[in-house]
Amino acid sequence: MSALPHPQIGALLAAIDGVPVTTEPSTVRKRSRDFFWYSPILDAQLRGKSADILVSPRDEGEVVRVAAACARLGVPITPRGAATGNYGQAVPLHGGVLLDMAGLKDIAWVRDGSVRCGPGLVMSELDAALAPHGLEQRMHPSTKRRATVGGFVAGGSGGIGSITYGGLREPGNILAARVITVEPEPRAIELRGDAAQKVNRAYGTTGIITALEFPLAPAWPWVDLIVAFDSFAEAMAFGHRAALADGITKKLLSPIAWPLPSHFAEVRPHCPEGKAVLIATVAKHSVDSFLALLGDAGAVTLERPLTDAPGQTPLYEYTWNHTTLQMLKADRGVTYLQCLFPHDAVLEKVAEMCALFPDELLGHCEFIRFGGRITASALPVIRYTTPERLSTIMAAHEAAGVMIADPHVYTLEDGSRHKRAEADQLGFKREVDPRGLLNPGKMRSYVPAAAAT
Amino acid sequence: MSALPHPQIGALLAAIDGVPVTTEPSTVRKRSRDFFWYSPILDAQLRGKSADILVSPRDEGEVVRVAAACARLGVPITPRGAATGNYGQAVPLHGGVLLDMAGLKDIAWVRDGSVRCGPGLVMSELDAALAPHGLEQRMHPSTKRRATVGGFVAGGSGGIGSITYGGLREPGNILAARVITVEPEPRAIELRGDAAQKVNRAYGTTGIITALEFPLAPAWPWVDLIVAFDSFAEAMAFGHRAALADGITKKLLSPIAWPLPSHFAEVRPHCPEGKAVLIATVAKHSVDSFLALLGDAGAVTLERPLTDAPGQTPLYEYTWNHTTLQMLKADRGVTYLQCLFPHDAVLEKVAEMCALFPDELLGHCEFIRFGGRITASALPVIRYTTPERLSTIMAAHEAAGVMIADPHVYTLEDGSRHKRAEADQLGFKREVDPRGLLNPGKMRSYVPAAAAT
Repeated sequence: MSALPHPQIGALLAAIDGVPVTTEPSTVRKRSRDFFWYSPILDAQLRGKSADILVSPRDEGEVVRVAAACARLGVPITPRGAATGNYGQAVPLHGGVLLDMAGLKDIAWVRDGSVRCGPGLVMSELDAALAPHGLEQRMHPSTKRRATVGGFVAGGSGGIGSITYGGLREPGNILAARVITVEPEPRAIELRGDAAQKVNRAYGTTGIITALEFPLAPAWPWVDLIVAFDSFAEAMAFGHRAALADGITKKLLSPIAWPLPSHFAEVRPHCPEGKAVLIATVAKHSVDSFLALLGDAGAVTLERPLTDAPGQTPLYEYTWNHTTLQMLKADRGVTYLQCLFPHDAVLEKVAEMCALFPDELLGHCEFIRFGGRITASALPVIRYTTPERLSTIMAAHEAAGVMIADPHVYTLEDGSRHKRAEADQLGFKREVDPRGLLNPGKMRSYVPAAAAT
Repeated sequence: MSALPHPQIGALLAAIDGVPVTTEPSTVRKRSRDFFWYSPILDAQLRGKSADILVSPRDEGEVVRVAAACARLGVPITPRGAATGNYGQAVPLHGGVLLDMAGLKDIAWVRDGSVRCGPGLVMSELDAALAPHGLEQRMHPSTKRRATVGGFVAGGSGGIGSITYGGLREPGNILAARVITVEPEPRAIELRGDAAQKVNRAYGTTGIITALEFPLAPAWPWVDLIVAFDSFAEAMAFGHRAALADGITKKLLSPIAWPLPSHFAEVRPHCPEGKAVLIATVAKHSVDSFLALLGDAGAVTLERPLTDAPGQTPLYEYTWNHTTLQMLKADRGVTYLQCLFPHDAVLEKVAEMCALFPDELLGHCEFIRFGGRITASALPVIRYTTPERLSTIMAAHEAAGVMIADPHVYTLEDGSRHKRAEADQLGFKREVDPRGLLNPGKMRSYVPAAAAT
């Protein structure tokens, strides 16, 4: 399956002598994958794609050496966090260097409720380091215990916490990003404020992130809850009420239809047969208020402190795209969608989509703030038949006013709600990666400005 | 003006011997007032109303003694915080005891991001005590430096912080309240969760609060800003955008039309002639994002750290009903309204009301969350002519779909949006104050269950 190695790999290895490198093919192939296989379409397209070598810089200086060498030799370079993404973000399409950023994980400082750290830091490790300050990250994906902060910014959009803070793209959720350019003489560019959005969900195509700054959230003692409801509609209705309750401190509200909870391994005993569940994470000081709001609308089947530590699965690992994963463990015949419902008709539109595809679509939503309004995104599980049928289901959502971010494509453009690259990301790429060596093929509308010099 | 003293005052004084009491008439009269005089209508109705004596219990035991004695002797009892309200909440209509709660100000504990304390604690003193924990109150009125936590719960509804947490009535914003009943053998009742709403904005008619529990917020370093705009509409439009930006940590967004800022004493030099201003309080870590969002839509004229300490006026003392006060200092010919705009047409409806009354209504809004949605409440300043004209202006708002909570009445029912007492407050009053001795006349729909025994 693999193409021939890039002809300049030998010269590159010489140029970066001293930087840790792995050339062992099976390791490189394995590390070149992410979780694209949730999509049968991406699975067919990306299976077998691999970098030629894995390079693991230990600091920014080594990143600069690798970037310089790649620029001079015309070798593709694909930065990688923990490769927990689902769109092939971290899969090198054209070989070259897979740049493992895990070595850059220093915390520069914590002050005024914000942090500056390296991109390779695992998100649960960052929270562990912030805990003595009474602080934690505002939001994280369901892969928090493996994912890196840089990978989340480069390949993610939001997650647990977005019910309070919205997505990463909301102004204020990323304070700064430092990137290294891929040029013969690499530059370090500090992107502050809005400008940091140039690296957000750009799949590493717009510079190599070497530091990030975020505002933080208070690290309350959190409680994980499962609440069972007779129907998915009831789980949605209560989830919406809780989402709108600004006095209740929360970071997760995930209504999930039966039979999805039947695949919830460790917490299966707390998911009654045939019932929909709402998974909620609520600050300890808000649990009583949450239960008062619930009244007898649903039955609490599990209530326990949230911890990221080993030994117990945090409930967020049954939500967002982990919901899909839990089902995929038992049934490889499913895949998923990514939907954003209109805030003024959330419950109606979710019910409408469930009714349209009663046998194929298993309901699963995530309440979030989006543009300052409470709405739901959804990652419904789909019983997969053909690419055409998947397209039909997505088209029906869009026709009903439900936005779709297609998770079955690997380019930024096709996966975006607007089906194009962000103008400022495209423009910025010209500055930082003139030859188009960064994760080539992912920003497909980019045309390299300069041929090899 | 004053009625004769209650015939049982002598017996009462004997019964509560040892509890600190003030009988000096001018002091009692002075302490019997609040800030009702913002309303020319209330001013005419309440001027001269006074308790017979001022009683200042030092602990719950003394509260119980006073309550028992009043219940046995049939003497009215009106609890009082700092009397910073504007509806005559703390004005005794029928003499009797004015119960100064300032002595009950112990902090019982701070844990899990919540606090339990006495009702007499001044709100800025509570925040000072919480600061070493990195915590502060979720919301406070503009009178924070004088107001007490009990007075806020009993007579307020929201304020600085409500842009993030909504009002006090949102589920989760009050965790518990302890009240003493007014009976010959007073009971202490612990109201937890939803039940605590029985004392929220009940003007002290539903039991004497002796302890409160609240969830808290992170005490970020905060920055006060003034931003000048060419028009009130522009200040509103940017305020709305900032209100919707969930990534920007904030607790105050107050657009204020010219000429109101011309009365802003200490900060007058930062309020350019003829310009509308937006007063904003933003976490230090969000200031850059706030300014990026602003772009060149307005001009920052002041930016300084927020402090409640003496020596500098925090900008919140130019917002909420302090805006009205600043103008009243120069011009006693004005008063104000209390409006709540529909969340789906905030900017349009504010503009519509300003256009309807161009000479009489000076625009002033407060962005808040209400029921989980961003909207604006408004306390426009009104150039006052007659009660009839004031009614006409309020009726025009209501006809346009803008809710009015009439601030020119002293009963709970007339001031409520629903023009009736909350059913559970009315029901609870029967339990805790069967003879109707607590702040009599304020919950006018209450009919005492029992005559004097």
